[in-house]
Amino acid sequence: MEEVGIGLVGYGTVGSGVGRLLVESADEIRLATGRDVRLRTVCELSAQRRELVPPGVRLTSEFSDLVTDPDIDVVIELIGGIEPARSFQLAALRAGKAVVTANKQLLSQYGAELLQTAEDNGTFLRFEASSVGAVPVIKVLRESLAAAQVTGIMGIVNGTTNYILSAMAQTGAEYGPTLRKAQELGYAEADPTEDVTGKDAAAKMAILSSIAFHSRVSLTDVEHEGIEAVTDVDVARGRELGLTPKLLGVAKLVDGCVNVRVYPCFIPDTHPLAGVSGAYNAVFLESDSFDRIMLFGPGAGGTPTASAVIGDVISIVNTTPGGYIGNCTCYKELGFYPGDEVVSRFYLRVQVADEPGVLAAIAGVFGQEGVSIHSMQQIGQEDSAQLVLVLHPVREAAFFGALTRIAALPVVRSRPSVIRIEGRDDG
Amino acid sequence: MEEVGIGLVGYGTVGSGVGRLLVESADEIRLATGRDVRLRTVCELSAQRRELVPPGVRLTSEFSDLVTDPDIDVVIELIGGIEPARSFQLAALRAGKAVVTANKQLLSQYGAELLQTAEDNGTFLRFEASSVGAVPVIKVLRESLAAAQVTGIMGIVNGTTNYILSAMAQTGAEYGPTLRKAQELGYAEADPTEDVTGKDAAAKMAILSSIAFHSRVSLTDVEHEGIEAVTDVDVARGRELGLTPKLLGVAKLVDGCVNVRVYPCFIPDTHPLAGVSGAYNAVFLESDSFDRIMLFGPGAGGTPTASAVIGDVISIVNTTPGGYIGNCTCYKELGFYPGDEVVSRFYLRVQVADEPGVLAAIAGVFGQEGVSIHSMQQIGQEDSAQLVLVLHPVREAAFFGALTRIAALPVVRSRPSVIRIEGRDDG
Repeated sequence: MEEVGIGLVGYGTVGSGVGRLLVESADEIRLATGRDVRLRTVCELSAQRRELVPPGVRLTSEFSDLVTDPDIDVVIELIGGIEPARSFQLAALRAGKAVVTANKQLLSQYGAELLQTAEDNGTFLRFEASSVGAVPVIKVLRESLAAAQVTGIMGIVNGTTNYILSAMAQTGAEYGPTLRKAQELGYAEADPTEDVTGKDAAAKMAILSSIAFHSRVSLTDVEHEGIEAVTDVDVARGRELGLTPKLLGVAKLVDGCVNVRVYPCFIPDTHPLAGVSGAYNAVFLESDSFDRIMLFGPGAGGTPTASAVIGDVISIVNTTPGGYIGNCTCYKELGFYPGDEVVSRFYLRVQVADEPGVLAAIAGVFGQEGVSIHSMQQIGQEDSAQLVLVLHPVREAAFFGALTRIAALPVVRSRPSVIRIEGRDDG
Repeated sequence: MEEVGIGLVGYGTVGSGVGRLLVESADEIRLATGRDVRLRTVCELSAQRRELVPPGVRLTSEFSDLVTDPDIDVVIELIGGIEPARSFQLAALRAGKAVVTANKQLLSQYGAELLQTAEDNGTFLRFEASSVGAVPVIKVLRESLAAAQVTGIMGIVNGTTNYILSAMAQTGAEYGPTLRKAQELGYAEADPTEDVTGKDAAAKMAILSSIAFHSRVSLTDVEHEGIEAVTDVDVARGRELGLTPKLLGVAKLVDGCVNVRVYPCFIPDTHPLAGVSGAYNAVFLESDSFDRIMLFGPGAGGTPTASAVIGDVISIVNTTPGGYIGNCTCYKELGFYPGDEVVSRFYLRVQVADEPGVLAAIAGVFGQEGVSIHSMQQIGQEDSAQLVLVLHPVREAAFFGALTRIAALPVVRSRPSVIRIEGRDDG
């Protein structure tokens, strides 16, 4: 039985999880692949981490040792970041090694270059763990749904923001204290910027939409908005309307062009994504051929991520030599559809003077701009009142045009809160 | 570029969907496999269905024409039922053809024989469409999670019963009228027996648990209970307790043994499965390594099922010749864990005389049998009252022992309603 040799760079939480699973699940892997898959060499600098490497595995601090070893077939890169990860992956691919990685930063920015290098060298680049942890969304998109024409993706792809918004919806608390609580509990990092600004989600959506639409979507193609401006008042108003707040990555195929964005939005309580609470992730896919499919699971964590890495290794070992599934996924050069032209639904809350004619003034502006109102509610508050509006689907440019005029009305007392509404109601 | 030849038996809803997708998605399939995948021959007897076959595809009424054609690499069986489907599949496998099927009856009863025949002949048997329609649960279990040790499965694997229970929970209506409404709307068949008795779900759970636990679970190993006895009163009481009714397939690995059953149960409203409403299906997987993963999507329908069949074809074309992923999945001969010994949570409603000492009598029996009460509620009704109890986890034999004694108490006025509670609360 031919052995498959593994070289691993980075023996942190995920790396040591991979090391452990390769030993613990050796029988399962042998039965799933017909081969012995063995960890040969670990490249790691930290003395503390080197101690975790099991006996019998060679340790090195030179990445080139992995590249030049003819008995290493698959290189697993788990150091993250752009450099030296990019150089390492390119060197491994050029040496004909298959590469497995969990590196979302790198893939979302240099995915095209890396995939092309893999293709040119007749080898594989796999990155299931880079998007939704243990949930095999990329495999499902790339293999099971290869012939299904996906038209839309909605993803809860960041556990930190999902935890914060779920907690705000449940407790009614404000954003600031909820973030601090999440930090105390370990659900948010000390510097939560990447998460709460939506940048982390944008990187994952770039990867997912590249695969789903067989096109090239890079991090810079994904506009993103975070959750810092979501208020407890809006969360409460949403609840009354049967809406749950989520930070969603939304990718749409419109007229053969791609639009990928990340923003906080409301979805109906009855939507399958609404039930995804806490630190979990989920990706919801739409297509004419399969209707709707959702994949749900832990978005992060050492063992789930390690399990996705192992899934990629098994998949490589079992794919036809020179198989096309590996890399040639971004073969359509699709254009980008401008966000302004996308048709969206909006929730809008605005603080107004409690005086006659206010409703007429606001409704008048919307009417002139061709924006149609689905529902409007006035909630009195001493001398001023809140207006909560839900609009019918509208071209975003028209909505924001009307919004600018409304914000400038003298009766409007504060900056309006705007939240998109996604997802059809499944009742 | 080498061509892959397809022979298809049964050109009904799913079959014609496969025929259509093979043409419409030819480019995607070529890019995913590097081959032209072409429908060569259709075996179909019905004149009406034969008219749907596209020009250029050979028609035959003899299955042997597919088996003897050296240019046919993959045979897709979509006639359903046991015979002649079983003989057809065996003949195709023995001729070295790969077989793809959606036939849950056959797989759940003769899966072991068919998989062994595939293995003996160095070819593939794939059956993604046999369990949860378009949702690639089998692929995910077999490949992505091959090294993850799955410990539990909870599945909403029957759309008809899910539609009926969702509607009962939403409208408060009784079972009978809800079933009739479902029949009018086409969500239930004229003869709904297979669905409402849980037998259809049992077949799917036999297939899923065989793959998840790498063991052999046949339809006869799966105890099943249907939804006919679920009352509107229990659904209403469940709602008050924050519980949603579902017909679940529940498979557990206990002490290295397998227990697979289908029964109506309550799950917390906050559980991801609770949001799966209408005719949708979902499978929830548990493991120490990935925590919990859920896959959701349409459980039936011509195009979704056809899309799963195409996914299997692509997967076969891309798997290493002689690849181990195909068949060798049932390699552990696990024993079965008796249902009586399973530890479950129960909801119990019982009609009692509204007189002093009733609570004490019932609590007394539970106490003697070692069954611990989590909550108890009395709802008065003229001269009799309803008691609604939720119990702490208990060995089923102990619970049913106590129940027999309680049902025989003179103060108990009706047969108690018993519904299991599954799923931890995710709050």
